[in-house]
Amino acid sequence: MITAEDIKLKRVAPAEGVSVEKLKRLIESGRVVIPHNARREGDIVPKAIGECMSTKVNVNVGTSKDYVNIDEEVAKARAAVKYGADTVMDLSTGGDLDEVRRRILKEVNVPVGTVPIYQAALSERAVVDMSSDDMFNAVRRHAEDGIDFVTIHAGVNLNTLERLRRSNRILNVVSRGGAFLVAWMIHNELENPFYKEYDYLLEIAKEYELTLSLGDGMRPGCIADASDRAKFMENIILGELVTLAREKGVQVIVEGPGHVPLDEIETSVKAIKHITDFAPLYLLGPLVTDIAPGYDHIVSAIGGAVACMYGADFLCMVSPSEHLALPSLDHIIDGTVVTKIAAHIADMVKAGQRERARQQDIEMAYARRNLDWKRQFELAIEPREAGRIRSNRPSESEACSICGDLCAIKLVKEFLKR
Amino acid sequence: MITAEDIKLKRVAPAEGVSVEKLKRLIESGRVVIPHNARREGDIVPKAIGECMSTKVNVNVGTSKDYVNIDEEVAKARAAVKYGADTVMDLSTGGDLDEVRRRILKEVNVPVGTVPIYQAALSERAVVDMSSDDMFNAVRRHAEDGIDFVTIHAGVNLNTLERLRRSNRILNVVSRGGAFLVAWMIHNELENPFYKEYDYLLEIAKEYELTLSLGDGMRPGCIADASDRAKFMENIILGELVTLAREKGVQVIVEGPGHVPLDEIETSVKAIKHITDFAPLYLLGPLVTDIAPGYDHIVSAIGGAVACMYGADFLCMVSPSEHLALPSLDHIIDGTVVTKIAAHIADMVKAGQRERARQQDIEMAYARRNLDWKRQFELAIEPREAGRIRSNRPSESEACSICGDLCAIKLVKEFLKR
Repeated sequence: MITAEDIKLKRVAPAEGVSVEKLKRLIESGRVVIPHNARREGDIVPKAIGECMSTKVNVNVGTSKDYVNIDEEVAKARAAVKYGADTVMDLSTGGDLDEVRRRILKEVNVPVGTVPIYQAALSERAVVDMSSDDMFNAVRRHAEDGIDFVTIHAGVNLNTLERLRRSNRILNVVSRGGAFLVAWMIHNELENPFYKEYDYLLEIAKEYELTLSLGDGMRPGCIADASDRAKFMENIILGELVTLAREKGVQVIVEGPGHVPLDEIETSVKAIKHITDFAPLYLLGPLVTDIAPGYDHIVSAIGGAVACMYGADFLCMVSPSEHLALPSLDHIIDGTVVTKIAAHIADMVKAGQRERARQQDIEMAYARRNLDWKRQFELAIEPREAGRIRSNRPSESEACSICGDLCAIKLVKEFLKR
Repeated sequence: MITAEDIKLKRVAPAEGVSVEKLKRLIESGRVVIPHNARREGDIVPKAIGECMSTKVNVNVGTSKDYVNIDEEVAKARAAVKYGADTVMDLSTGGDLDEVRRRILKEVNVPVGTVPIYQAALSERAVVDMSSDDMFNAVRRHAEDGIDFVTIHAGVNLNTLERLRRSNRILNVVSRGGAFLVAWMIHNELENPFYKEYDYLLEIAKEYELTLSLGDGMRPGCIADASDRAKFMENIILGELVTLAREKGVQVIVEGPGHVPLDEIETSVKAIKHITDFAPLYLLGPLVTDIAPGYDHIVSAIGGAVACMYGADFLCMVSPSEHLALPSLDHIIDGTVVTKIAAHIADMVKAGQRERARQQDIEMAYARRNLDWKRQFELAIEPREAGRIRSNRPSESEACSICGDLCAIKLVKEFLKR
């Protein structure tokens, strides 16, 4: 009997350049996940995230308290997928949250994720007033709608909080979900329900085949806060939660930092991978400097490419608006393209992907050798900008307007007859 | 007696956060250079390039055969300096080359470099028709005008050429100066005059206190050609030429690749540094993928930040127009800002610079903690874009429009009273 699972594997394996058998083994070990809610409707392109798989890109969209325009957020989600996003997360915190989520689920054909605690927090007068029922009900509500993966900040427990208190962080907590839980735990003097009743969470996840993405509540919000004990404590808790999820047959991803200086990325990524038994690692950044607002998509591409070289699997797009404002549609597109470039750069040096990924670069090299411009545009990750640039300043020669007839490629081809 | 040299050192040392004594030792060892032509007029800001110094950024400008607009090239040079370029190179190959060069020298107050062989090549009917006198005369002419550093492809000799012939490169030679010399050597069946008569070149350099930047004629033009024997052969020759230059008291820089995959950068940079006795390393890129035309400033920032983490000292800006067209003024600015960001990211992890560089990031973290937007813009590497983004979508709260009142920083400050 051919199961839905078999169909999914047969579709994913060739897309990733691995055998069905290998993919199966990687999924069984938990090193690879394919987020897909049993209730999700429509023909959803399955995406494998983890070891030996191509680096995946998530794009966050969603309303805020200041800007509620559901049509625009749906348009952002569609544009993100058009420009190569593998998954979309709806992080809405303004307007009718159910409507945004359901519309996005309908309009895109990739896995969709959410952070249910946002809705739980908004269901009461104040964040600290939510009940543990509010939290779990939000998760169930999203699961019922067909959401494929949810971020749950279950690693923000009393132990982690104590490490945070003893730290000397400048920015303490910058994760929104993490901050909600820290505030809630302090105000109510209670353990984080997602940690305390993690078994109940796993039951819900199991029922809907919901993938858990264990949130990075302690992610450093600035370079000075990177790689500290609070973050490592959370990593340890997340590792234990990974084990429990796997025991119950629930797919699980781990989220990672944040703001990390360039020379700490290797240690950070490798430590998280070890501590969490090589769960797929989903990175928010890492941003490798704090002082480039307006250019954080580029800062994040630098950190992200390096992080994936060392084992990260899944990059969350950071837009040029990060730290400044809710992103515009254009910024979603810019950020998506740049993150796709970082993902490709990482795939070129990643076990299991390097030969496949480099094939495109090799073809580009031949297209350049042949001064075949049509082919160069076909091979470009995003050809529109390249086309605009070239047609704005054409050359009178068959080369480009930087060198014209003095093109090195032309000249050497003439003299070095090979 | 206080010499001009002493004045220069006293000006540079505090700018780099090192003592005059340490700077002096580094210059004497050749690990640091301060390019400055004895004939250069005006108050030129001295720039120290090399070990323990902050990462420097060069911006290329110049006419091409297809686009000759001297005013625009001068405007590009001025804009580059305004946005943080430490040096400017005039790579003009169209129109009155003497005029462009002289105007740029007058209009900017930073070291200016050129590639004299372009003028030599253009002085005859065809590139291969130039004489060795044409080549050396061009160098002397630029030196007389006050040019501070010149790229000389002296490592492209018969030995290197033989290694190239035995290679299976896709793109052979993509360096314009390198290609001129390869064509010339094959056509004339002669050794490269810059190699053969290197002593004469050193005499000219010595006379004008001209800094030599040993060109990267064999730089790989695509990922598939990276780290091969032709490039290593050239590195070896460049290393020998570094020794000879130092013996004659001529300041010397080494230029490096090119297109290099992310996981080969560490090896590439460290090998070049060793082989060339730790001469200041000037990088063109490295571009870590071939398939992102239109976004090569970002691709280069990724490679450049990583290369400088491993020891490169001097980054050549790559514009979004690379591989496509002569850059516009806007692209020069975009490229400069992004390269400055990469340089700062590297300084944050570089021996001799990390504490100083990170101070800005620490101040930004406090400004974010305090939601002090004015201060955040003051600390930004380039605040204009950040300001536009924020004012396009303001928040009704004191935070930003991503989270509004749900700002993690605000929330945690309220509950975690520290």
